[in-house]
Amino acid sequence: MTEVRVAGVGLTRFGSHPERTGRDLFAEAADRAFADAGVDRNAVEELNYGNFMGALAEHQGHQAPLMAEAAGVRCPATRYESACASAGVAVREAVRTVAAGDADVVVAGGMERMTNLDTEGATEGLAIAADDLFEVRAGVTFPGAYALMARAYFEAHGGSREDLAHVASKNHENALPNEYAQFRTEVSVEEALDSPPIAEPLHLYDACPITDGASALVLVSEEYAAENDVDAPVAVTGTGQGTDRMALADRTDLAATPAAVDAATAAYDDAGIGPADVDLAEVHDCFTIAEVLAIESLGLAEPGEGIAAARDGHTTADGDLPVNLSGGLKAKGHPVGATGGSQIAEVTRLLRGDHPNSEHVPDAEVGVAHNAGGTVASAVVHVLEVAE
Amino acid sequence: MTEVRVAGVGLTRFGSHPERTGRDLFAEAADRAFADAGVDRNAVEELNYGNFMGALAEHQGHQAPLMAEAAGVRCPATRYESACASAGVAVREAVRTVAAGDADVVVAGGMERMTNLDTEGATEGLAIAADDLFEVRAGVTFPGAYALMARAYFEAHGGSREDLAHVASKNHENALPNEYAQFRTEVSVEEALDSPPIAEPLHLYDACPITDGASALVLVSEEYAAENDVDAPVAVTGTGQGTDRMALADRTDLAATPAAVDAATAAYDDAGIGPADVDLAEVHDCFTIAEVLAIESLGLAEPGEGIAAARDGHTTADGDLPVNLSGGLKAKGHPVGATGGSQIAEVTRLLRGDHPNSEHVPDAEVGVAHNAGGTVASAVVHVLEVAE
Repeated sequence: MTEVRVAGVGLTRFGSHPERTGRDLFAEAADRAFADAGVDRNAVEELNYGNFMGALAEHQGHQAPLMAEAAGVRCPATRYESACASAGVAVREAVRTVAAGDADVVVAGGMERMTNLDTEGATEGLAIAADDLFEVRAGVTFPGAYALMARAYFEAHGGSREDLAHVASKNHENALPNEYAQFRTEVSVEEALDSPPIAEPLHLYDACPITDGASALVLVSEEYAAENDVDAPVAVTGTGQGTDRMALADRTDLAATPAAVDAATAAYDDAGIGPADVDLAEVHDCFTIAEVLAIESLGLAEPGEGIAAARDGHTTADGDLPVNLSGGLKAKGHPVGATGGSQIAEVTRLLRGDHPNSEHVPDAEVGVAHNAGGTVASAVVHVLEVAE
Repeated sequence: MTEVRVAGVGLTRFGSHPERTGRDLFAEAADRAFADAGVDRNAVEELNYGNFMGALAEHQGHQAPLMAEAAGVRCPATRYESACASAGVAVREAVRTVAAGDADVVVAGGMERMTNLDTEGATEGLAIAADDLFEVRAGVTFPGAYALMARAYFEAHGGSREDLAHVASKNHENALPNEYAQFRTEVSVEEALDSPPIAEPLHLYDACPITDGASALVLVSEEYAAENDVDAPVAVTGTGQGTDRMALADRTDLAATPAAVDAATAAYDDAGIGPADVDLAEVHDCFTIAEVLAIESLGLAEPGEGIAAARDGHTTADGDLPVNLSGGLKAKGHPVGATGGSQIAEVTRLLRGDHPNSEHVPDAEVGVAHNAGGTVASAVVHVLEVAE
């Protein structure tokens, strides 16, 4: 097993790109990743690409060869799909490929176009991440599903809409300096509370937006980095994946996400660390309640205590454990097939010290990225550490 | 690196299953694979699943968790999509996972439902495997694309519709005893020639059908097989993948499939064998011309000589190199997301001696499986060998 290093990261601005195709977006992210890495694209041995709903949004399946062209690489290219965890899974397999010595240079990332669909189209597109037979046909949409999870959490542990509003406000605050964020606007707790309801107890500002965007990472073996003078100070030291039953009705506890617990346990074991070692986290806050469930699943808060973490300041930028310094899905945006790669790019920038929010975490050495699909039927967790 | 063994294979009947869901089909294939393997499903550590157009055919993305449920396994589950090579890629990553020692027991396979769509829906669904911007919107469909490849081949090397009709007739003959085949009917060369044109020079019997079906394989490490008394006499000794430009217009030679050459070269290198060692092959004959291109890319025929291989009897059941003893996509059927797994299941049965066509290859020790996506923008090749 060799150590896997992040040689470079690239993102597009997250937001609405009505004039851009998916391949345009991924090309831009890849260009930035190669420029950041200082690695020649001819060195790339494999491309792992995440995309969720391209068949619906762009009438385009089989996107991996297209994205290899867009990225200017000529190598085996594979698409991964795991709903909103698509890029997380793509990165995970890239990490395992490099760790196993099967390749020295792999590009991983993802892309999603969503804003070209109207609201009904985007809602229907996202719905294919739920169980069509037993959820979608019964009227379940994702705001509704996460609202059920929030209600279950409140019933099990207490908590309030105001607690969730603190998560939203924190993540909007974090997004302010992030040049890639979709929403660089402050949202006060009061504004979040006053936003219109979408599925009680969730209101509009509890939800992430519809987003276009792409992410790309250049991952290399430590040997390749050393031999080629590639500056790659951050290592991916742990990777883990978990899978749960798809439909909420088939689960025993809607106030927990065991797939993420499984993924985190595996990732920590792989890295040889525990939650107490973590200095910062990027987690999958597609809804505010999802951030609460994520930090509990990662062991960064005890069950029932995650709800107060933002309100009490533990997870704010200057708290003891900053969560979603990027702005999170909530404010940075959520191009679903790109998000898992974006989270790892942001953790990398934070650990390298070149993120606009790095000033809040000058001594951070260990970061975690948590990417989830559907109502966390799928989860992928990565541990990143400063290596040198 | 440990040796990867095929402990068990499972297939559904290929054909039309209007009364079945995708999860029903995959559950049946998985049940058969576990029964064949004699491996407890609680031992499964990962599930790799191929599916191409479920977002369109069943309004169902994020299928991997559903298929883990269907297969009765609780482990990380990942969907792979590479058009008609989706299951091939899923198997390839499973093979690499076991070879690297990351897991001892992995299930890989795939599923596709297609016959629930009408002809227009199926044609549009398959079209997402081509370049939407530069092919599909210009009116290219897959029969048209492969017709262009056939014309280019005829122009470069000669050949005739009659040569292709021999491929069709051979594969229908091979499918006769196969209990899983969609078409167990003889088709004479004359009947193939007389079938209606779909895109000259291709006629109806040059094309594979629209098919529902599923495939599943239980792959284990040789150590696991030995320690658990699992009878797994066939090893996957080589895996390779290749990627080409997506659109035909971006390629220099439509009479060749370099992605498959790359995949075959890598797979042979991995196995430490060459084309001369191959005793039988299952190749991706979505159209008759595709079989010709496949055997040339695999090095089983020289460029320009593949066209005569069926007519001259080299690739017939009792020829020196039987190709598509299963019936191939042409007669066995082509549930696109399942096909790559099915091919490996059939090679395994042939090498084990328990395939209804094994009598034609009593001494076979090395088999190759060739799975392609789109117009071979993606290709995956596996080498299987009798290990004990």
